Amino acid sequence: MSRIAYVNGAYMAHRAACVHVEDRGFQFADGVYEVLYVQNGRFVDAGLHLDRLDRSLRELRIEAPLGRAALLAVLGEVVRRSRRRHGLLYIQVTRGSARREHKFPKPGTRPSLVVTLHRAPAFPAKLDGWSAAAITVPDERWARCDIKTVSLLPNVLARQAASEAGALEAILYDADGGITEGASTSVWIVDAAGTLRTRPLSHAILPGCTRAALIAELDGSIPFEERGFTRSELREAREVFLTSATSFVKPVLAIDGEKVGDGEVGPVSRQLFTLMARHVLGNRPP
Amino acid sequence: MSRIAYVNGAYMAHRAACVHVEDRGFQFADGVYEVLYVQNGRFVDAGLHLDRLDRSLRELRIEAPLGRAALLAVLGEVVRRSRRRHGLLYIQVTRGSARREHKFPKPGTRPSLVVTLHRAPAFPAKLDGWSAAAITVPDERWARCDIKTVSLLPNVLARQAASEAGALEAILYDADGGITEGASTSVWIVDAAGTLRTRPLSHAILPGCTRAALIAELDGSIPFEERGFTRSELREAREVFLTSATSFVKPVLAIDGEKVGDGEVGPVSRQLFTLMARHVLGNRPP
Repeated sequence: MSRIAYVNGAYMAHRAACVHVEDRGFQFADGVYEVLYVQNGRFVDAGLHLDRLDRSLRELRIEAPLGRAALLAVLGEVVRRSRRRHGLLYIQVTRGSARREHKFPKPGTRPSLVVTLHRAPAFPAKLDGWSAAAITVPDERWARCDIKTVSLLPNVLARQAASEAGALEAILYDADGGITEGASTSVWIVDAAGTLRTRPLSHAILPGCTRAALIAELDGSIPFEERGFTRSELREAREVFLTSATSFVKPVLAIDGEKVGDGEVGPVSRQLFTLMARHVLGNRPP
Repeated sequence: MSRIAYVNGAYMAHRAACVHVEDRGFQFADGVYEVLYVQNGRFVDAGLHLDRLDRSLRELRIEAPLGRAALLAVLGEVVRRSRRRHGLLYIQVTRGSARREHKFPKPGTRPSLVVTLHRAPAFPAKLDGWSAAAITVPDERWARCDIKTVSLLPNVLARQAASEAGALEAILYDADGGITEGASTSVWIVDAAGTLRTRPLSHAILPGCTRAALIAELDGSIPFEERGFTRSELREAREVFLTSATSFVKPVLAIDGEKVGDGEVGPVSRQLFTLMARHVLGNRPP
């Protein structure tokens, strides 16, 4: 069977999957999304992602299109019908289709739900080659980056700038020179004193699920603080890495054309990559 | 014939008009739009709107889907097939449909073009009743509000807040307390000294077509400055009004529950409404 999508109650060939032109996701970016990594049929951090989806919907007062169990059944069915064991599940919920006006449509307007499955590379067998260059760019996004909305145009432009500079990710800094996050990743450093740091949650960054999963996996052997850092501290860091559902733990070896540390993957990144491999692959030690 | 839409080269019944779920307008807010008022078959300020569309596309490096003449032909055909003489033409262009990733899709990806026609009330026969209440809310939008993108979620939330407060428009103020604009309108005041003022263009506001048209129509009889104003100045203004392709000149008689001036339409608003009526209706004096 070819690629399958789910749109508003129906499973269909991906090529035929469409939404109405008056969908508020298309006209107003009035929607939210999640991306889940599927590892051998298992949804990695599904609870964290679906909790965050619920939170995003609550913050925007969009009705949940399905309950948790029904949504999980749809996700499972998309994977089953696609005959795949690995991939990226993409879930998008919008405020539905209605006559165009800015304010919310009348109560009872049904939210739209789209689920697709994308190819994804397998979890990297080893860390060699699993690294990135990054650039830094001003954070031009809106005031509520804690909500995982499809209002992603500034992220698109930042990522395009990175691509044109030969880099993978754009690391964003605010008006005070504080690093917020990557265009689609959380950013971590091992600072000059050897402390692992990532910015605390606020309206300025997305509450990363992989970020949360990694924090939960930390065993205390590495000094860790949820504490922000500046662009200067980023440049002077011993190690920098990114986390996301598709980056896992990805070392950043160059920023704005300059090496991070000695330009090699550092020991903390290596240790956390191993931790993440166990988390994603599910082969925890007994 | 029933309501008609144009999508990517085809005219179709509006109810059947859809875009693919991988359209970047739906997933990334990676698109721009325009709204034109159609008055007795004539497109009001068409040149200004289509010039702004071109500018928005250039700023985002989205290829124009059609040249000016071909686009005007499509607009005309949507109106003709809809058998209407009045309405609102909605034009949306996105970066097209492509495998989901933040950076721009590969060159040659065709932009999407959607055109729909919406019902619109006729130009108000008189100013009585053509007024609005407004609230003020913080401007939470991104750094490039000069581009008319579909990244409108903050505008949606602001307009919904207005609606719940019994108001029509949300007037936005920045971190310094300066008024930027309305959620979908330009904001003007007649200040305490009797000067007509609206904020100069910058990245913080949309270059309003109706704003530009009104400035061009001013005959010098009213002192006018393109100069920003604060929330306090807004509250102390003698008159406040909004402009947009669908608001024309719309007096604001109450802000945050307090009367503007004496709560009646002021003389400058009245004069400019008359000027705008001539502009829109096309019945200029000989």
